[in-house]
Amino acid sequence: MAVDPSVAASRSEEAAEAFFHAAPPLHDRDLVAGSLADFVARHSAGSGGVVCVTSGGTTVPLEQRCVRYIDNFSSGQRGAASTEYFLKAGYAVIFIHRRGSKQPYCRFLPEDSFLDLFELGEDLEIQVPQSHSSVVKAAISNYRKAINEGMLLKLPFTTIFEYLQLLQMVANSMNCLGHRAMFYLAAAVSDFYVPWESMAKHKIESAGGPLNMQLNQVPKMLFILRNIWAPSAFCVSFKLETDPNILLQKAEMALKKYGMNVVVANELANYKDVAVMVTRSGRTTVSRSRKEEDMEEQLTNILMKMHSEHIAQHNL
Amino acid sequence: MAVDPSVAASRSEEAAEAFFHAAPPLHDRDLVAGSLADFVARHSAGSGGVVCVTSGGTTVPLEQRCVRYIDNFSSGQRGAASTEYFLKAGYAVIFIHRRGSKQPYCRFLPEDSFLDLFELGEDLEIQVPQSHSSVVKAAISNYRKAINEGMLLKLPFTTIFEYLQLLQMVANSMNCLGHRAMFYLAAAVSDFYVPWESMAKHKIESAGGPLNMQLNQVPKMLFILRNIWAPSAFCVSFKLETDPNILLQKAEMALKKYGMNVVVANELANYKDVAVMVTRSGRTTVSRSRKEEDMEEQLTNILMKMHSEHIAQHNL
Repeated sequence: MAVDPSVAASRSEEAAEAFFHAAPPLHDRDLVAGSLADFVARHSAGSGGVVCVTSGGTTVPLEQRCVRYIDNFSSGQRGAASTEYFLKAGYAVIFIHRRGSKQPYCRFLPEDSFLDLFELGEDLEIQVPQSHSSVVKAAISNYRKAINEGMLLKLPFTTIFEYLQLLQMVANSMNCLGHRAMFYLAAAVSDFYVPWESMAKHKIESAGGPLNMQLNQVPKMLFILRNIWAPSAFCVSFKLETDPNILLQKAEMALKKYGMNVVVANELANYKDVAVMVTRSGRTTVSRSRKEEDMEEQLTNILMKMHSEHIAQHNL
Repeated sequence: MAVDPSVAASRSEEAAEAFFHAAPPLHDRDLVAGSLADFVARHSAGSGGVVCVTSGGTTVPLEQRCVRYIDNFSSGQRGAASTEYFLKAGYAVIFIHRRGSKQPYCRFLPEDSFLDLFELGEDLEIQVPQSHSSVVKAAISNYRKAINEGMLLKLPFTTIFEYLQLLQMVANSMNCLGHRAMFYLAAAVSDFYVPWESMAKHKIESAGGPLNMQLNQVPKMLFILRNIWAPSAFCVSFKLETDPNILLQKAEMALKKYGMNVVVANELANYKDVAVMVTRSGRTTVSRSRKEEDMEEQLTNILMKMHSEHIAQHNL
């Protein structure tokens, strides 16, 4: 028997409240709240779009004094690239990102060492090899522009506890923007966690043979975001699966269950090359033809068009 | 009843063999083997010390097509800093490091974005603010020197499977260096893992309620390293605990059980400020008096002195 939607909503709210109640409080909460309030106030005065991009994977600590944790695979490439294209199109961006994940305008960096990019000239001045010079200069210039013009706010997280608290703060704060707000939820969020209170205080001993762990499900915050925190916003979530046979079915389910406007479906094997945008009115496939292209350019352009329609519809 | 040492050795060997047999093969194994053989051959002709520094945390995949994994906390700061001091003292360094962890000469970089360090001048030339100029220039110059003179070989890993295969290859390859070889095992290695064969092929479903996991113990490779792969080398391992009450006792145990020459004992709460070096002949505490200092300078200097004595003793 299907569960009554209002019952589902109140159950989700209870689960979310219990999660937040048990979570360790966010470090620097007041500082974050302040810069967030300033950012939103400045942009609510304008008429442009404001998008919250989430990026990178969340960790689940297994010990309170954390030595070990469960992590979700995500380089943050999609979120960082998309942020660049949103900024280019004039959106203000709140970039909630995993510490150490890919950053906007830094995606081209050598994986291991940024020192590989630089040389010292004869007069000991810092040089970039000719081959990379224009890329590095454009990156510095675009990044400075976004920061100086107040179009980009970067908020870092590591754990699932930090991520969900930040998302709640940002959503509540963006609520005043109504339909002009977009959520682009590209972060890879843990489905399971160990409640803080039941967590081992110290490093788990390795001498006692095999380790058995029980992990609880993280409350479905997409539902809360959509229905309580940001009811007017344009919401885009992502579904990544390794098994192509269940991918679209799971994307359709997320669309309905959480009330997303768009679910972007990806397969792990080719997520950089192709994605299917699932909406209530149908499916759109985007793909790139060359490795040098960013699929995020197409993806964000289509989404911004849909977002414009979403705003227009509600302003009738 | 105590276990006969030869029985313990053969049990450890069996466990190690089973682990390697079941591990996914190392990507680019031949390429790594080639550059490793060149590096060791070049330095075996000389008379200087060669150290293998391991750095950063290993991951334990929970799924074969890996979306989720267990990770060990480690920035790689200790390994990266120590590598700089070993190079400065004339050692050749094989730096086995976690992808994305701190790199030698790059430790000063801003956490989020290297773009924060750079500006464009009036003629669009790349500039570093005066405050950071000398640090950045010294970094570029020292890094280029180490690479150009063939003193630094960097080998990256992500998973526990990659890490242990690399360590085995390096140890076997360094065996010809005899007592001139040092192992400085600063990586945070997982104690538990999921055997590849019993691992979920696809992303673990989140719809089925709480998740129960059983993890196996990783074979104690320190024992194998000391007794089989590198019997003549000078071996330094690290012990990190959150509970100070059991720290030194566990370090003493590791010293005896695995036959290390030195175990460096650290408490998570103050591992950057103080460490206790435990040897068969006693304990030495090293600490830093100012935040600007690297404790690694003292630590590596004492270890290189011990290593010289180790070489001298065996050359009598």
